[in-house]
Amino acid sequence: MKQARVACFGGIHDAWEVEGKLQLRDGRIVDSDAVIWLPPVEAGTIFALGLNYADHASEISFKAPDEPLVFIKGPNSLLGHNGQTRRPSGVETMHYECELAVIIGKEARNIKQAEAYEYVAGYTVANDYAIRDYLENYYRPNLAVKNRDTLTPIGPYVVDKESIPNPMNLFLRTYVNGELKQEGSTKDMVFDIPYLIEYLSSFMTLHENDVILTGTPKGTVNVREGDEVVTEIEGIGALRNTIVGDHVFNR
Amino acid sequence: MKQARVACFGGIHDAWEVEGKLQLRDGRIVDSDAVIWLPPVEAGTIFALGLNYADHASEISFKAPDEPLVFIKGPNSLLGHNGQTRRPSGVETMHYECELAVIIGKEARNIKQAEAYEYVAGYTVANDYAIRDYLENYYRPNLAVKNRDTLTPIGPYVVDKESIPNPMNLFLRTYVNGELKQEGSTKDMVFDIPYLIEYLSSFMTLHENDVILTGTPKGTVNVREGDEVVTEIEGIGALRNTIVGDHVFNR
Repeated sequence: MKQARVACFGGIHDAWEVEGKLQLRDGRIVDSDAVIWLPPVEAGTIFALGLNYADHASEISFKAPDEPLVFIKGPNSLLGHNGQTRRPSGVETMHYECELAVIIGKEARNIKQAEAYEYVAGYTVANDYAIRDYLENYYRPNLAVKNRDTLTPIGPYVVDKESIPNPMNLFLRTYVNGELKQEGSTKDMVFDIPYLIEYLSSFMTLHENDVILTGTPKGTVNVREGDEVVTEIEGIGALRNTIVGDHVFNR
Repeated sequence: MKQARVACFGGIHDAWEVEGKLQLRDGRIVDSDAVIWLPPVEAGTIFALGLNYADHASEISFKAPDEPLVFIKGPNSLLGHNGQTRRPSGVETMHYECELAVIIGKEARNIKQAEAYEYVAGYTVANDYAIRDYLENYYRPNLAVKNRDTLTPIGPYVVDKESIPNPMNLFLRTYVNGELKQEGSTKDMVFDIPYLIEYLSSFMTLHENDVILTGTPKGTVNVREGDEVVTEIEGIGALRNTIVGDHVFNR
């Protein structure tokens, strides 16, 4: 089951994918091009992983960490499918990052790895963009790198966990203007989903609709104004985003 | 005007301080000991500053930063006045941190320092506890240091900004079991409130009820199970908290 949140007919609606179209809760069918796609969950806390694929860590000259490098992002950074992400004027390097996003389904506290999937509602695709110019340390990037408005497209759908028997063996691919630029597999995560849920829930409560962005494999390249970036995960979906100039912020 | 959020009479209410008691919106008066104090705002994004008082930075052997060191905390960490904060079993050092909390009043984007206070709704007191054992770097502490449940008591009231003509000249004091342990002044912040609002809003949107925890002066000492910790800011309030053992989390 694939569930979205969309704006159409003057309101905001939950919607389900039915034969390539969207069905609203009241039964109406709408074409997927005729809606504004919103982030598919009203996210609680948004956790993001740094350096969670060893190949990506080596690509940027760091060794993989000994324990999960987690930071929190604000909801201001979120954006739906087909949205526009702003690239600050004057920066040199903006990287997409195709990431499997895990949606928490219920309160989780001291959960062991063996039970971790019971606390997952489903999965979606995220693109955890980074403005590398502002980076001083890869371990917990500052807010100007990761927390700008529109820097975290997410969607299109949440796919329920029952539809994805093994989330730890899915291809991730990013296309820029139709050309394959990044390719990896969730099997190469340093800390897998059960580990991350055990780790986080060992010292804090996870809540329904909290989101864990699980990191990106190697293959990040610079993107520019006008580029179309599609991040795709096998069985989960293809999240489309376009890069525009930033006429809003002055840094 | 001092506004709280409290639980009493089977519900959650906004409440105002009137002659040492609390008045609800419907006019009922209730004794402040007869309620459960909740965080006084339903916080949006919670920003916290590292090393924003030069004396505190030197106390922990770091030089003050060149630009604001900001990280984001999750709502799971919040707790109201008179609440209980859990100290993990087996850790050596838990520090309180008395901090002025700034409550944002409306959307802020590219705000200059001269206009920054127009975007402030008011102020409250926070205690931004840290479990030092888990710290590997002071610049953006990991979640086990700062983001545990109950680690951010806040309150009791939001005091509206009109009542505080100069928030940059207020004494901060922390008492442990009635004994004064920490004393400083907001005038010693490295980056003051207008600077922080200009900085954050230069690359992201601040929203109503976002909270900025502005850092702590020197004088942090270890606290233990059973301690009563009162963080107090001149004209804003005295936030009481007690430390209990942690029988919930295993790390």
